[in-house]
Amino acid sequence: MMDTATAATITAAHISEFKKIAGDDFVFADEETLDHYGRDQTEDLHYLPEVVIKPRTAEEISAILRICHEHHIPVTPRGAGTGLSGGALPHLGGVVLSTERMNSILQIDERNLQVTTEPGVITEILQNTVKEKGLFYPPDPASRGSCFIGGNISENSGGPKAVKYGVVKDYVLNLEMVLPTGEIIWTGANVLKNSTGYNLTQLVVGSEGTLGIVTKIVLRLIPHPKFDLLMLVPFCSLEQAGEAVSAIFRGGFTPSAMELVEINALRIVSRMVESSAVPVTDDTQAHLIIEVDGNDMDVLMKEMEAIGELLTQYDIGDIYFADDAQQKAELWKLRRKVAEAVKLDGYTIEEDTVVPRAELPALIRGVKEVGARHNFAVVCYGHAGDGNLHIRIKKEGVPNSHGHPAMTAALRELFELVHQLGGTISGEHGIGLIQKPYMDIVFRETQIRLMRDIKKCFDPHHILNAGKIFS
Amino acid sequence: MMDTATAATITAAHISEFKKIAGDDFVFADEETLDHYGRDQTEDLHYLPEVVIKPRTAEEISAILRICHEHHIPVTPRGAGTGLSGGALPHLGGVVLSTERMNSILQIDERNLQVTTEPGVITEILQNTVKEKGLFYPPDPASRGSCFIGGNISENSGGPKAVKYGVVKDYVLNLEMVLPTGEIIWTGANVLKNSTGYNLTQLVVGSEGTLGIVTKIVLRLIPHPKFDLLMLVPFCSLEQAGEAVSAIFRGGFTPSAMELVEINALRIVSRMVESSAVPVTDDTQAHLIIEVDGNDMDVLMKEMEAIGELLTQYDIGDIYFADDAQQKAELWKLRRKVAEAVKLDGYTIEEDTVVPRAELPALIRGVKEVGARHNFAVVCYGHAGDGNLHIRIKKEGVPNSHGHPAMTAALRELFELVHQLGGTISGEHGIGLIQKPYMDIVFRETQIRLMRDIKKCFDPHHILNAGKIFS
Repeated sequence: MMDTATAATITAAHISEFKKIAGDDFVFADEETLDHYGRDQTEDLHYLPEVVIKPRTAEEISAILRICHEHHIPVTPRGAGTGLSGGALPHLGGVVLSTERMNSILQIDERNLQVTTEPGVITEILQNTVKEKGLFYPPDPASRGSCFIGGNISENSGGPKAVKYGVVKDYVLNLEMVLPTGEIIWTGANVLKNSTGYNLTQLVVGSEGTLGIVTKIVLRLIPHPKFDLLMLVPFCSLEQAGEAVSAIFRGGFTPSAMELVEINALRIVSRMVESSAVPVTDDTQAHLIIEVDGNDMDVLMKEMEAIGELLTQYDIGDIYFADDAQQKAELWKLRRKVAEAVKLDGYTIEEDTVVPRAELPALIRGVKEVGARHNFAVVCYGHAGDGNLHIRIKKEGVPNSHGHPAMTAALRELFELVHQLGGTISGEHGIGLIQKPYMDIVFRETQIRLMRDIKKCFDPHHILNAGKIFS
Repeated sequence: MMDTATAATITAAHISEFKKIAGDDFVFADEETLDHYGRDQTEDLHYLPEVVIKPRTAEEISAILRICHEHHIPVTPRGAGTGLSGGALPHLGGVVLSTERMNSILQIDERNLQVTTEPGVITEILQNTVKEKGLFYPPDPASRGSCFIGGNISENSGGPKAVKYGVVKDYVLNLEMVLPTGEIIWTGANVLKNSTGYNLTQLVVGSEGTLGIVTKIVLRLIPHPKFDLLMLVPFCSLEQAGEAVSAIFRGGFTPSAMELVEINALRIVSRMVESSAVPVTDDTQAHLIIEVDGNDMDVLMKEMEAIGELLTQYDIGDIYFADDAQQKAELWKLRRKVAEAVKLDGYTIEEDTVVPRAELPALIRGVKEVGARHNFAVVCYGHAGDGNLHIRIKKEGVPNSHGHPAMTAALRELFELVHQLGGTISGEHGIGLIQKPYMDIVFRETQIRLMRDIKKCFDPHHILNAGKIFS
């Protein structure tokens, strides 16, 4: 634990009021529940809330927030708890407000290619449900099988398809949300173009549950592409793999995914997932996983061939083509398991750096240098096509946590490099609790002051996810 | 004129300070200059500023704004003055701050597919310059030959390509801006994914110059598609043309443009631009202009055929295919001239309604009904693929201006219909001065209060484009 919760703020009278609003069965103060809702997927952090509430409607949330607003009770909104920056951790105690019961897909509007959903729907379920209608919602984090769409909105999540299809913010049209003061508003309209006042929708996307609790989400959808092809390219140099990424885009190609996994991570994940499909030869230093998609198979075949041809200028091994759905699934499973595998291997914290994509080789070089200088082991992998590189470091004898000075010093060097390269410290995980100490590297006091003031417009008593993003 | 400027706020001492900052040659108080900068393309509105300043750098703007902040002097930022909602009109007098001298494209980063530009660059020049490198910046309003990219950022402009490629907000990565208090900040980072704090970039896009003056713009670019095909489809029913729009998307097609022009507008523009290329037969009620683009001509041909096939279910005339670059240019010229032609015909004000695209037929029907009920002549045209319909109404004996009660009553009915259909009052023109009285139709007091409070975070003395969007 980095910190301890503040003194208890919740009385028996509050709990009784909460029960009147959400129902006796959905207000929890037992040890086991509090323990569970005191964790997410961030390192090994743990902060106990005082009460956990699982409301069903925006109206219930409104009533709860009115009480919390009046009595200055801290409220931490929570989706599935799969976050990696501590955004759902109740570090100030108080209420954890879980959206898990708000799990209905309300309407699939096939006429307008839109879906309206509650926040507690699992992202993969949402994807599969719209896919049955031939529709596509592209953004899917590695945790898509368990994370909630509401959490994805909070963090502005990305995932492997972002390189062609964009991130969550590119799909959100309109949000119903409950303000910390209890008012329920819509942020925009269900339209593709909107120049009507400030873009409150985009302000809320990625605001990590600090401005309000999102209760309905209107997403635009696109027609699902009919075909995709997947290939894996082993590189004998990690930096060359980074160079190849921007070369492919400069060549006029827009793959639907372009993922990088370096050798250290490959070895770890290969041990965990027994897979014969993916070759790791002695001189492999990294894999690029490249996917193209579209509606014309001939065009895709030509595209894959042309990309393969372009890559012969680099020092690569034999290109492996995933021939059928099963091979593709295996390859993707391997990729999606990387974070879990390296975490089990002791790389507890995951950084989420992002740079302009042509700066990837410089970032990779720099990461290795920072690692060597501080005597840390380093693994990198991520959404190379977006310049979004996940980095994990660890060192024998140093707890793998942001709080430790040895870790902090190395991470500051890393983030300063990222900033010099035109990048920033989070591409898709958010700042939450653990990246907060590094915000000064990418923003000056003026921007932080603006954010703090904006927060106050929405949350004058500073109750909602207070202390996340900035102090 | 709807209103008169407030009492003069600027003294000779201020002007002398401005001259020290921007240079004697770039501070204007002569009648002719003031007159010119008192107008934009909105109706026939005219408000005189007290002084016009044409700074060259962010630092000059910072120094000017510090003075204006200290002395509570109103400042109206101005791009090319092509706006249609009065955003650049100095209705409170004070300073007009023109960005016309900040007209350099600073860097085309071919490695990262990005361009960094100053705000005073004409959009078409920016497009042509990056096209020389094989790159594409899609958003281009009808005024692209004269409007500035900075103005496009202010209004979150769209244009015909938005249907496939999105609007300005989808291309802005990072902005340098001067706050009304004089501080110069960057809003984000030059990256494709960003979950680092609130999205100040997206808050500023479309904020109509009320939050700060944008001085540098980093845009993402995409590879320019190699080919495009264009066809024109005459419909015997305007509503059917509206229905066909969403049918095409439901069919899995994503045209790169899908424009609608109804018969009244067609007749007017055909009189202005003498064109033999475009057939208007007796039973034509509307045209759909449909473009597809991509890198494989065979695929495009097939797509066009399939769209044509799909459209045979409607009551259409002979489809006209633009065979070569000249025919395409002629067709596009005709489309781009529509607004100018109907304006010359006396339809001075242009509405910018937007609805979910499948609601277009209902909107079209409603527009005609509102027109009939109020005895107004009505013309419609616009970016049908986005559900973005431009509507112009006029009536013998009623001044064609938002201020007149007869006009206001009709427009309120129109906007209430738009809101009922899930839409909003501006898709790409902004609210500015003239749509402000209708904001209550789409936002409740809570949202307006939030916007007003956000404005205050950026501009505590309320000097920058005050009175635009909301009072």
